[in-house]
Amino acid sequence: MNYGMIIYLLGRVLEIVGFMMACPLAVSLYYHESNGILFLICGGIMLIIGALVCHLVKPKKTAFYAREGFVVTSLSWILLSVTGCLPFYLSGEIPSFIDAWFECISGFTTTGASIVPAVEDLSHCMNFWRCFIQLIGGMGVLVFMLALIPSTGGQDLYIMKAESPGPSVGKMAPKVRQTAFYLYIIYFTLTALEAVCLMIAGAPVFDSICTAFTTTSTGGFGVRNTSLMDYSVPVQYVVSIFLFFSGLNYNFFFCLWMRKWKDAFRSEEVNLYTGVFWCSVVLITVNIVLNNHYGWEEGFRHAFLQVGSIMTTAGFSSADFDRWHSFSREILILLMLVGGCAGSTCGGIKISRILIYLKTVRKELSQLCHPRSVKVLKMEGKAIPHAVLRSANIFLITYASLFVVSMLLISLEGFDFTTNFTAVASAIGNIGPGFSLVGPTQNFAFFSPVSKAVLMFDMLAGRLELFPLLVLFSPETWRRN
Amino acid sequence: MNYGMIIYLLGRVLEIVGFMMACPLAVSLYYHESNGILFLICGGIMLIIGALVCHLVKPKKTAFYAREGFVVTSLSWILLSVTGCLPFYLSGEIPSFIDAWFECISGFTTTGASIVPAVEDLSHCMNFWRCFIQLIGGMGVLVFMLALIPSTGGQDLYIMKAESPGPSVGKMAPKVRQTAFYLYIIYFTLTALEAVCLMIAGAPVFDSICTAFTTTSTGGFGVRNTSLMDYSVPVQYVVSIFLFFSGLNYNFFFCLWMRKWKDAFRSEEVNLYTGVFWCSVVLITVNIVLNNHYGWEEGFRHAFLQVGSIMTTAGFSSADFDRWHSFSREILILLMLVGGCAGSTCGGIKISRILIYLKTVRKELSQLCHPRSVKVLKMEGKAIPHAVLRSANIFLITYASLFVVSMLLISLEGFDFTTNFTAVASAIGNIGPGFSLVGPTQNFAFFSPVSKAVLMFDMLAGRLELFPLLVLFSPETWRRN
Repeated sequence: MNYGMIIYLLGRVLEIVGFMMACPLAVSLYYHESNGILFLICGGIMLIIGALVCHLVKPKKTAFYAREGFVVTSLSWILLSVTGCLPFYLSGEIPSFIDAWFECISGFTTTGASIVPAVEDLSHCMNFWRCFIQLIGGMGVLVFMLALIPSTGGQDLYIMKAESPGPSVGKMAPKVRQTAFYLYIIYFTLTALEAVCLMIAGAPVFDSICTAFTTTSTGGFGVRNTSLMDYSVPVQYVVSIFLFFSGLNYNFFFCLWMRKWKDAFRSEEVNLYTGVFWCSVVLITVNIVLNNHYGWEEGFRHAFLQVGSIMTTAGFSSADFDRWHSFSREILILLMLVGGCAGSTCGGIKISRILIYLKTVRKELSQLCHPRSVKVLKMEGKAIPHAVLRSANIFLITYASLFVVSMLLISLEGFDFTTNFTAVASAIGNIGPGFSLVGPTQNFAFFSPVSKAVLMFDMLAGRLELFPLLVLFSPETWRRN
Repeated sequence: MNYGMIIYLLGRVLEIVGFMMACPLAVSLYYHESNGILFLICGGIMLIIGALVCHLVKPKKTAFYAREGFVVTSLSWILLSVTGCLPFYLSGEIPSFIDAWFECISGFTTTGASIVPAVEDLSHCMNFWRCFIQLIGGMGVLVFMLALIPSTGGQDLYIMKAESPGPSVGKMAPKVRQTAFYLYIIYFTLTALEAVCLMIAGAPVFDSICTAFTTTSTGGFGVRNTSLMDYSVPVQYVVSIFLFFSGLNYNFFFCLWMRKWKDAFRSEEVNLYTGVFWCSVVLITVNIVLNNHYGWEEGFRHAFLQVGSIMTTAGFSSADFDRWHSFSREILILLMLVGGCAGSTCGGIKISRILIYLKTVRKELSQLCHPRSVKVLKMEGKAIPHAVLRSANIFLITYASLFVVSMLLISLEGFDFTTNFTAVASAIGNIGPGFSLVGPTQNFAFFSPVSKAVLMFDMLAGRLELFPLLVLFSPETWRRN
């Protein structure tokens, strides 16, 4: 294990977090909020420690393999969340440390599950920081670092693999750094575009910026107690449309950018995502209009926003969907598990894996009848490598195992099955709200510290697609070669 | 497709069902019940039609492959359930045909979910028939046929594969017929032994025989409205012990029989099953004693019986476990999904698959850190063939897909998530009761015919381990070579 390199990269991460605290500091200056000073102090200390670490620990070897990639990614995210929550805790706006940490992990992992009963009581700079960490967490802090600092070894690809969602890393450019750069351009363009649209639609500037941050990162934190329920109809539509975009594979936007229209619109993953998305919207619209006394426009609007919000794992709400008919509720629970496209900021199992699963089942059914036939599984026109197939299968098993263990631990508190099931689904899928006691009008504050710790672990595991975090607990990781 | 052979075998199945109706006929004669005449009429007609079909349709080719194996198995089970339900329907004791069919499928698949509100109101011969079809269904009708009639082609192995539970067919003897014969000897010995023990423990003779039928088949139909709640303590213990045995792989008993003690007790599957079983019993005992005002003996007894009943997918109940603490409830929900050993009469995913899943995850975690290392997955000391691994993975995906689709269809009725989830889990896993509206003190009568049809499909699919039934819907099955 190349400890020097790991500590060096962690120092860099600390520098980045410190540097980023300048943004909420600026917000606090604008709103004349005194507790903004905390961002100056925390940020300053982190910058100094980070710089010191990077200066003192010069890695002797640059050897960097998969193992180091996983370890540095997991540790970075833990470091991020511990340092990022300090302003919440020190300001006293979130009085308990575990709650502040929970909120921060929920932010960085773009889950959006909150323990704050009334977010409107928080100061502007804290609310901005909550939304800003979702923006940072959405695309990945390490990928951001890769785009900024020059590569010192072979670490790029391994970090990218460990931090990026989806069964395989889509390469936009031959070099990892270049790919990370393109990803961030698309990401920031979408965010800026949404902020402008929201302002045009009539939302206040602060709300527009924060909501744009948490939409494109599919985070789901809001700056109002009622999430999106009180915003105007145009604002709700703007968010819904950008949610739909945010669930798409960023390769799609890259193809559009490069004017490869065919590649963009022929992507199997994008088509399946679009199909599932709009089928769910139609089914839920019809179901809630018939059963929940909505008009057609209102029903469609809520269905559109809620499908967008749950499938992309953002977690906004425009209505108390926990009161909807059980057919709609169960579609939403399924979408919680499915998630958006790989190569987006979404959580969940991801559409591309679902596509792989469906294809393997279809192949198996045909092979059962014709055992000697040889068929090759293809996706996006290319044969799916055996390693990708295997890892997609193992992902499902691990997802289910983590789900089961977490649910059992949480059930010790004695809440109902729906609460436990959807709280865990929401945490692993990085969604935010669930159903029953963790429904859209509730929050996660009532859980015991043990359950909160379980959910925090789930959020991190879900964001990093399970293995990087689990690898930390495998004795083989720490064994000397 | 060898249609001649398929029709010929279906004719044989019809003969067997007709022949088996002699047993409830005898019961009706003993109890002087007039509606026993229905078994004579139905059985007679089936025998005649079966014999006619077998006489007229002499298969020209004996060619018989996997495809034919799946098709004949699925069609046999549909035929079994349609013909087996006729006495219920014609006697008027179950007035609706779909209900009678549901009850019969629930019987043959050893699910044990009932639509009869008060089984004590049924006549003895009908109650006997309900339990007897579980005995027949437990080990498989076609396997029974294989043990009886001489093989006319290469059909043995393919039928055995299609009808037997578990990822691979365990061979006790080189010949399939011989293996089937051994299986039936173990099966009937266990059943007879339990019936005797139950009588010694003080249960009435009729109850003892019926309960023994539904224990070793892990069916779970009872002859009392309250399942096992009203039986004496010794009776409950006897059932619990035999439930534990019934969840074991029959290879274990075969090894004992052959005095291969080492092989018997070193089986990884048996050890994992035993471990999960007793851990669950201990956890639930402690949990319900602390939270549900049970004494230690009473808590242990209920936990033992309930874990046995749910894990082996029988579905008896000795207490209203739907009122237990949510930790215990959720352990039981998980056990519903897990099921017992492969090579037993249990439903569910099966312990041997769970073992394969756990091993693949452990291997993946180690391989992630050391990508170039080569490890071979072993089970019971032998390398797991790639085909078994693949099929175990695809099984999980198919299980989840069927689960999801069924749950969505049932949710159209508007019941709560727990009801929908556990009703489907109970049907696919061939368990019987679930939680909430399908809890141990409830029954399945309130579902609409559409939902009942979905659950009937799930029960058959679960019993035949998904693929044989799904293959029927694949166009490739019916395509000419």
